[in-house]
Parts: sequence; structure tokens; C-alpha cells
Amino acid sequence: MPAPPVLLAGLYLALTLIGAALLSLPFAATQDISVGDAIFTATSAVTVTGLSVVDVGASLTLFGQVVLLVLIQIGGVGLMTFAVLLLSSLGLQINTHSRHVLREDLNQSSTHDLMGLVRSVIRISLAVEAAGVVVLALVFVPELGFRQGLWYALFHSVSAFNNAGFGLRADSLIQWVSDPIINLAVPALFIIGGIGFVVIGDIMEKRRWRLLSMHTKLMLVGTVALTVYGMAGFAVLEWTNEDTLGRLETVGAKLAASWFQSVTTRTAGFNTVDLSQIHDSTALMMIALMLVGGGSASTAGGIKVTTLMVALMATVAFFKQRSPRAFGRRIGPDQVLKVMALTTIAMLTMLTGLFLVSISHDGDFLDLAFEVASAFGTTGLSRGSTGELDTLGRTVMIVLMFLGRVGPLTIGYLLATRKVSRVKFPEGRVYLG
Amino acid sequence: MPAPPVLLAGLYLALTLIGAALLSLPFAATQDISVGDAIFTATSAVTVTGLSVVDVGASLTLFGQVVLLVLIQIGGVGLMTFAVLLLSSLGLQINTHSRHVLREDLNQSSTHDLMGLVRSVIRISLAVEAAGVVVLALVFVPELGFRQGLWYALFHSVSAFNNAGFGLRADSLIQWVSDPIINLAVPALFIIGGIGFVVIGDIMEKRRWRLLSMHTKLMLVGTVALTVYGMAGFAVLEWTNEDTLGRLETVGAKLAASWFQSVTTRTAGFNTVDLSQIHDSTALMMIALMLVGGGSASTAGGIKVTTLMVALMATVAFFKQRSPRAFGRRIGPDQVLKVMALTTIAMLTMLTGLFLVSISHDGDFLDLAFEVASAFGTTGLSRGSTGELDTLGRTVMIVLMFLGRVGPLTIGYLLATRKVSRVKFPEGRVYLG
Ligand SMILES: [K+]
Ligand SMILES: [K+]
Repeated sequence: MPAPPVLLAGLYLALTLIGAALLSLPFAATQDISVGDAIFTATSAVTVTGLSVVDVGASLTLFGQVVLLVLIQIGGVGLMTFAVLLLSSLGLQINTHSRHVLREDLNQSSTHDLMGLVRSVIRISLAVEAAGVVVLALVFVPELGFRQGLWYALFHSVSAFNNAGFGLRADSLIQWVSDPIINLAVPALFIIGGIGFVVIGDIMEKRRWRLLSMHTKLMLVGTVALTVYGMAGFAVLEWTNEDTLGRLETVGAKLAASWFQSVTTRTAGFNTVDLSQIHDSTALMMIALMLVGGGSASTAGGIKVTTLMVALMATVAFFKQRSPRAFGRRIGPDQVLKVMALTTIAMLTMLTGLFLVSISHDGDFLDLAFEVASAFGTTGLSRGSTGELDTLGRTVMIVLMFLGRVGPLTIGYLLATRKVSRVKFPEGRVYLG
Repeated sequence: MPAPPVLLAGLYLALTLIGAALLSLPFAATQDISVGDAIFTATSAVTVTGLSVVDVGASLTLFGQVVLLVLIQIGGVGLMTFAVLLLSSLGLQINTHSRHVLREDLNQSSTHDLMGLVRSVIRISLAVEAAGVVVLALVFVPELGFRQGLWYALFHSVSAFNNAGFGLRADSLIQWVSDPIINLAVPALFIIGGIGFVVIGDIMEKRRWRLLSMHTKLMLVGTVALTVYGMAGFAVLEWTNEDTLGRLETVGAKLAASWFQSVTTRTAGFNTVDLSQIHDSTALMMIALMLVGGGSASTAGGIKVTTLMVALMATVAFFKQRSPRAFGRRIGPDQVLKVMALTTIAMLTMLTGLFLVSISHDGDFLDLAFEVASAFGTTGLSRGSTGELDTLGRTVMIVLMFLGRVGPLTIGYLLATRKVSRVKFPEGRVYLG
């Protein structure tokens, strides 16, 4: 029996290959799709990234689109379910103290009720997606007729809730840039999907700020702060850019587009503005936001909002010369160590990926950095370079999407089962900085 | 009395302004230098960065060059001396246990002998620089005559030992790309200057690997690993580039140039190859190396080799499910916290700087990133964009050089005097990654 992380990665690899095989069937596409394109598309769907080398709406048949949507659903909610399953399997291996910590964190009366959590995840997902279909149908059915409109509503609802970023139009949601329903319903779907089930469960149960767990408070504060930061940044930098916000006529439309681009960056992947036209400074800001991503155990990717928050709080704590804490709770050294490991791995992976892609492709460096961050953060936003990559470049992108989706979870599993070293080393000191 | 870190920053600001005033004197330059250029140049010298908006050899008179060299000497060794002075002042404030830790780290029998350390620093600096003058004179005197040759030898010896990167030619050391003495003596000077006085003292005293402190071992292993990595990377990526290594005729010359460019990147700042002609992938690798920099309490900048090493060891430890350690010594949670704070601050500073510069300047993004990393790492390598920056851009670069040089030390002071919080917070847990 291989170790669980290896098993998990293997399962997702298998799912990807099955998806690629299905997408390669003659009746899955209206035109020939190469094996490489099929693997890329299946990986992008299973990892809920949304980067695409084919035009989903035009090149895939209804069958192909259904295959894609199933991959998205399994990849998005399935990985989340797996996370919970992992936690449950791990509940049997850890000592009583850790189990109590775990139980408190999950706000459960017993670690054996984790299967109940899994059922809640499935239930909430289906409920939210169904609500999404109804609301989005209000936009799509009048425009596209009943059958196609309903299919659009279903596809975009599932894709949005799972933070997959796949749409049926080549230009994502640009034509609905000022549509109020699209600007509210789609972000609502991917924010709910991306904030993490534990947070949703905590809010549904407690309903009062004071009672919420530290994790939930950190997620809520972090999400609001990042959203405001991204929205203000996008608005200020792009307000007069004639190719993006400048062409929109009302202040409301500009703010709506800034709001949408801010929330989509962590890690939904839809866009209502042509991202190839944004300024370099805006692209840099979006790269940072894509790498942060959404919440743990959610349909979102990135290093996660809480990882950033703990890094910031550790920095503040260091300057204030005390141990890191938030909302009256201490953040232990093991959690700082985890953040250190996560950010180091993320940085090295991002740099290595960018390095390899820049060897194989001579395009604009910032555009490449944008695509690499989008792949590793499983965001799916694009400035167009992904389509231009050669085989090496696309292979790197496939690996990055896979690592971006499976990596953090695998790391999480390793942490949860850590054992204490029996050898006690004397402490050495090192000069830093 | 202001807090010591504020005082330290104020002292360096004062030194910079005095230097700028001296460089603005009519007999300091052969042509008019603007106030902005004088401030930029003085900052670059005091922070031993080496980025320049004037041609030092052509635009400054001998008086101007002497002013520059004095600023470099105070900035390079002076900050180091200040670091030791800070440690000594702090030895009076910390408890007995911490003092013992400090004493062990400094390999001293008493914390009151720190003034002896300061004297050693000055002595070693002068001895190494004098040796550098003699060796470099062998190259410069035959080429430029006795007086100018000796001045070149003195200027480059001091500039190299202090990792300042300032040369007297507009194209740095490119014309000596294959000269064996330049390829050995100059790197020897900046490696000795940049590895850290504590390391040199430890090696001089112990002379045997087994007896060296953990810090020294980490620095030696890290320096060798980074040098080999940078040299191999530069050679592989640039071997056939007709504008860099490709134009060199022998394998030996190509390897020598690769060696030089590898060691100079952390953070000497001289170059023997035209860096505006290197590939994007090479530039990315060099950006990473510039941000790492050299050793703590040395003339080098960057987040420091040991900071990278601890981050890597913390990551390994996390995966191996044990506490971080190296060479049989444990690395405590407070040191991981410090690394976390340093890297977070470095990342935010680098991103903010790049963001501001990219708003004010529409040049190639990678070139801008290169200059920003060069300023913050106080490296001084340039692909040419620094000269093109407007006032906002140059101001950002000045601030980055200052933060790159003063920041880590200031942080170090804060750490060393940290007090323990008397309130005990219950530990909370947070989902990460
Ligand atoms: K996505
Ligand atoms: K330098």
C-alpha cells in the first residue's frame, strides 16, 4: 500500500488521464484535439485551474463539455472531500491530545463525525450550485433561449462554485462586464466555494462573530482586506486605461469591473476585462493575489489566505517582540514552521516553473510570470501566452497546475501525522539577515 | 534619546547627505551633477550598492572619487562595526542566559570583549585591502602607469572588499574578462568581505571543520553551493550566447566568466560580461541570487545565505516531521520566526518597490525587476534601466538601497532585545495551504 499522499496524487493522475481519454474521443470535439491538448485541458479541469489551449465553447461538443464539467466537479469538491477523508483517516492515527485539537478546529463534538462533514460538503455544494443555476438562468435564458441558456447557467454555476474559471465563450465573461446579476451571482458562487467549507460550517453554526473560531475570523478579515486591496488597486491603476476600465462609461461600471477582477484573481479565473491590456503594475498586483489564492480545504488554490495572514502576524509579532497571535489566540511555532515550509516550497516551485518556461519561450517575461502564477495558483486567468507555449512549456504548466492543486494537501497530510524525534539536539544559533 | 535602530538609520542618513553635499562641490565633478544624482550616488556608496547614474571614472574628479571611496569604506565596514557595537550595547541589556548564548555565538569568552572584535574588524579589513592593492597593482600599473595604476588598484581593492561594486570604467571589469588576476583577486576580496567577520574569526581561531560553529558551517556550505549553482547555471544558459560567453574563445575563459558572474551576483556588483545581453532565464536566476546576498554582519547585502539555509532546513524538517536542525544543532522556533519575518519583509519590500517603479517607468519588466533586486540586495549589477528611471523611480531605488542595507540590522537589534509577554494566550489552530 503506497503512502496516502502518493495514493492521492495517483488517484488524481488517473482521473486526469481518464478525462483526457474521454476528451480525445471523436464525438467529444468538433475538430481534432491533439493528445497534448486533451491532457492539458483535463489537467486544467481536474485541478480547477481554467487555463485552456482549446476554445471550450467552440471546439468541444456537448459531450465534451459535460466531461469537462464532471472533471471540474470531482476536482473541485472531490479534493475537498478527500481533504476531509484524509483528516478522518488521520484521526485514527494521532494521539488523544491532537485529536482534541483537531476536534476543536473542526468544531465537531467527535472526530468520528467527519463523514458527516463530507456529506455536508456534498449537500452544500449541490444546494449552492442549484441556486446559482436558477439565478444565472435569468441572464442566459433570455439571451440564448431555454435549452442553451439553461446549459450556460449550469456550466457557469458549477464552474464558478468550483473556482474552475472555465467558460463557454473564448473571451470569458467580458460581454457581461456591466451585468448586475453576473457581477453579483458569479462572485458569490466562487467566494462561497473558495472560502472553505470549515468556514461556512462555522458561520452557519455560530452566527455570531464572538463565537467564531480563529481560523474563520482570519479568513473573513483576510478575504475582505484582500478584496478591498485588489479592487482599489485595480480601479486606481486602470481607471483611465482606454483598453480596460477607460472604455466603460459609468463610475458604477468601472467599480463593478474592479470588484469582479479583484475577487476573481483569488482563484476563480473568470474575467470581465481583457487582461492582456492591463498595465504592468496591475499585472504584478494580480500575480501576487493569484499566488495567495483562497481558503484552505476549499475549491480555491494558492498558498491560501491564512498562510499569508500567519506570515504577516509572525512578522508583526517578531517586530513587537512577542509570540504570534490573533484574536486572543496564540499561533504556535509548529504553525509558523508550516507557513515557512509552504512559502518556501511555493517560492521555489514558482521560480523553477518560471525559469523553465522562460528557457523554452522567448515571450514577454511579465506575461510568462502571469501565466505561471495563474497555473500554480490554479487561477486560470490568462494574458494569452499559454496558447503560445511549446511542448516543454505546456508540460511545465501541467506540472504546476497539478502541484498547485495536490501539493498543499499532501503537505497537510504529512504535517498531521508528524512524529516527535526522540533525539534531543542542543540548540545552535545562526546569524540571520 | 531616540531608539538605537532609529539612531542608526539617522546616522547613515546624515552620512549620505554629507556625502551628497561633498559630491555636489564644483571641484568634485568634471561636469555638473544634479542634486538628485549626488544623493543617488552617495546613497549607492554608503549602502555599498554600486548602482550608478553617473560615470564614476569620467564624471568625478580625483577628489570626487576619494569622497566616494571614503563613503564606501565607512558604509561597508562601518555598518559591520555598528552591528558589533549594537551587539555590545545589547549585551548590557539582556539576561544572563541570553548573554551566554550570545557569547557562544560570537565565540568569545566574554561579551565585554566585543570592542576587541571591532578592532579586529578594522585590522582585518585594512590588511586584506592592502593585500588587494598589491595584487591588483600587478594588473593596473603595467597598463595605466604607476600613479593611475596604483589609484585603480586602491579603488578597486576597497570597492571589492566592501562589496561596493563601483569601478572606474563605465563597463565595470568587462575588458579584463579573461585576466587571471582579476578573476581571482577581485572575487577573493569580495568573498572575504561578504562572508562575515564572525565566520572569518571562527575559521582563523579553530582551523578545523569539526570545531567550527554551526553558523560558520552553514555559511561555508551555503556559499559553496550557491557559487556552484550560479556558475553552472550561468555557463549552461549562456554558453552559446554570442553576446556574452559565446564570444569568448576558450573553455577556460567561458568558465572564468561564469565563475566571476556567479560570485559577483551575491552581492559584489562588478561584472565582466555585458549583463544587458544575457537571456531572460539567466536574469531570473541572477535576481534570485542577488536577493539571497552574502553573510550576516559582513559588507554584503540580501536576505543573507543563512536566512535561505534556515528556510530550506525548516522546509526539510517540516517534511521529515521533526524540528529543524543542522550539523547536530537544533534551530529554535525563534530563529524560524525571525526567518519568517525577514523573508516576509523582504518579499513585501521587493514587490512594493517593483510595483512603484513599474508604475513610473514603462520599460521591460524583467529589466526593472533586475534593477530593483539589485538595489534591495545592494548588489549594484545593472542591465541599464536605472539610468532611464525618472525622479519617482530613482527615489524608490534610493529607499530600496537604504532599506536593503539598514533594514536587516535594525531587525536584528529588535530581535536581540525582545521581551517575553506576560500574558499567556491559549493556542489557536489555523488551516494552512
Ligand atoms: K481557477
Ligand atoms: K554591491
